[in-house]
Amino acid sequence: MQNTIPDLDGFPVIIELPVQWGEMDAFQHVNNVAYFRYFESARIAYLEKIGHVETMHTTGIGPILAAARCEFKRPLTYPDKIFVGIRVSNMGTDRFTMQFRIFSQKLQKIAAEGDGVIVSYNYRERRRAPIPDEVRQRIEELEGRTFPLSHHG
Amino acid sequence: MQNTIPDLDGFPVIIELPVQWGEMDAFQHVNNVAYFRYFESARIAYLEKIGHVETMHTTGIGPILAAARCEFKRPLTYPDKIFVGIRVSNMGTDRFTMQFRIFSQKLQKIAAEGDGVIVSYNYRERRRAPIPDEVRQRIEELEGRTFPLSHHG
Amino acid sequence: MQNTIPDLDGFPVIIELPVQWGEMDAFQHVNNVAYFRYFESARIAYLEKIGHVETMHTTGIGPILAAARCEFKRPLTYPDKIFVGIRVSNMGTDRFTMQFRIFSQKLQKIAAEGDGVIVSYNYRERRRAPIPDEVRQRIEELEGRTFPLSHHG
Amino acid sequence: MQNTIPDLDGFPVIIELPVQWGEMDAFQHVNNVAYFRYFESARIAYLEKIGHVETMHTTGIGPILAAARCEFKRPLTYPDKIFVGIRVSNMGTDRFTMQFRIFSQKLQKIAAEGDGVIVSYNYRERRRAPIPDEVRQRIEELEGRTFPLSHHG
Repeated sequence: MQNTIPDLDGFPVIIELPVQWGEMDAFQHVNNVAYFRYFESARIAYLEKIGHVETMHTTGIGPILAAARCEFKRPLTYPDKIFVGIRVSNMGTDRFTMQFRIFSQKLQKIAAEGDGVIVSYNYRERRRAPIPDEVRQRIEELEGRTFPLSHHG
Repeated sequence: MQNTIPDLDGFPVIIELPVQWGEMDAFQHVNNVAYFRYFESARIAYLEKIGHVETMHTTGIGPILAAARCEFKRPLTYPDKIFVGIRVSNMGTDRFTMQFRIFSQKLQKIAAEGDGVIVSYNYRERRRAPIPDEVRQRIEELEGRTFPLSHHG
Repeated sequence: MQNTIPDLDGFPVIIELPVQWGEMDAFQHVNNVAYFRYFESARIAYLEKIGHVETMHTTGIGPILAAARCEFKRPLTYPDKIFVGIRVSNMGTDRFTMQFRIFSQKLQKIAAEGDGVIVSYNYRERRRAPIPDEVRQRIEELEGRTFPLSHHG
Repeated sequence: MQNTIPDLDGFPVIIELPVQWGEMDAFQHVNNVAYFRYFESARIAYLEKIGHVETMHTTGIGPILAAARCEFKRPLTYPDKIFVGIRVSNMGTDRFTMQFRIFSQKLQKIAAEGDGVIVSYNYRERRRAPIPDEVRQRIEELEGRTFPLSHHG
């Protein structure tokens, strides 16, 4: 998708989702839990683009969500359409940080921002693993930059 | 669990669940979708008791939900605790019908009733399969009755 | 949306939804509960078109879901896009039946079908109410037919 | 509930929840989104204890979740029972931080930890409001300590 939303500039992957009526709770706003589902859908779209789901089948090394965080800026309500931008903001040897931002079409404003830490995990050996080289490379291509190796991820 | 709820007499399996605040929707009642999650949790508890999940690993024959139905009798609200009774009401060669009933502790009344059709499926051969004998037997033990073979399930 | 899916001919309202990865369960298919969320989203879209949500504010008479049913025809998996068609198939004095059908873009087949009963309810007087005339009229316009009065809904 | 779990010492409110089968995703672990629902259920239990939901009706001042964060320590699977401890760790003039911890009965280990920021909001005047005195007092009673006023919350 060609991005035409200035607030999402710099996010190489953007997904579009309808707000569903049933995502609202008794306070008549979209429930906080739904934002983490939106984030997940964007994350999966990104992980597919960098082949990190495939590597799980070929090398046994796949992604694990180690932490997630969201700041709720403005309440969302049905009906609306949201655009979820996602990017990698930081990369270590065995983990990277993904940042996401939710833009509301109805409000024409950022509704939420957050991030998550993805750890590279060897499912066969049941321990952390370095990020596979091809995954690292595809992230750098997608982000249009290189990531200096840091040990903090 | 020893059943002390007359409305759930005749249900050999009963599970207990807390109503969660976040299950309520903008109408300030528990959303219809949550009832199907309650039903599922009861169904899984029953399927485990009859070993129908194990047979999936040993014989490749497991259960598939082919249909589900719910009648919403009274709205549920947080806080409450519900008791979900479940039983097999009908059994054919390759399918059986499970009936469920949701009882609200707060209302002291039946909140919902419904049923679902479980088809026995051979995941290896990718087609319907007769209900494994041991599953049929355990259902009959649990229900304290025999089921005449019918072709309608 | 102009319908170009023969399987959804005759459904005056069709919504489009992305299948989300997180809607899949441990069997790696979209969980049954998600279908009822899809159905709800289509139902709300229809109810808005016929003004049945507005009448709740102006006259206190709104819709209540009294029953819901779904037949799961083919498993859905991520990624996919679905089209949910919805129509009124039957109308009584205080209730109507909505039929829905889920079409999978990936499978190019019907994935599920079902229906639900909507009861017209006077929230101020806390009892069933006749379907407001303007709602009945808009349903008939949308469906392009009249509904003979029946007492069974 | 009398706490007998050393890992939850110091949490004045603890709720108990069954892990539901349908909360697992295609990776066959409880999906990350479910943890935020668990957190919400604990938060609501705490907010009720301190009367912060009531103040919304009497004074128009109620709680809003401004941010939420979770660290996933160990994967949860069905069947299991979890205990969610929750406490206030920090309090400012118009906001406080709630910390939560999820303990798995099956693993006998901490499965997740996180926190959230609650902002006190005047729904009538549509702006932030100081935490009502009685709410502040009940938090201090519940936590068995006083909170020095900070402007960072």
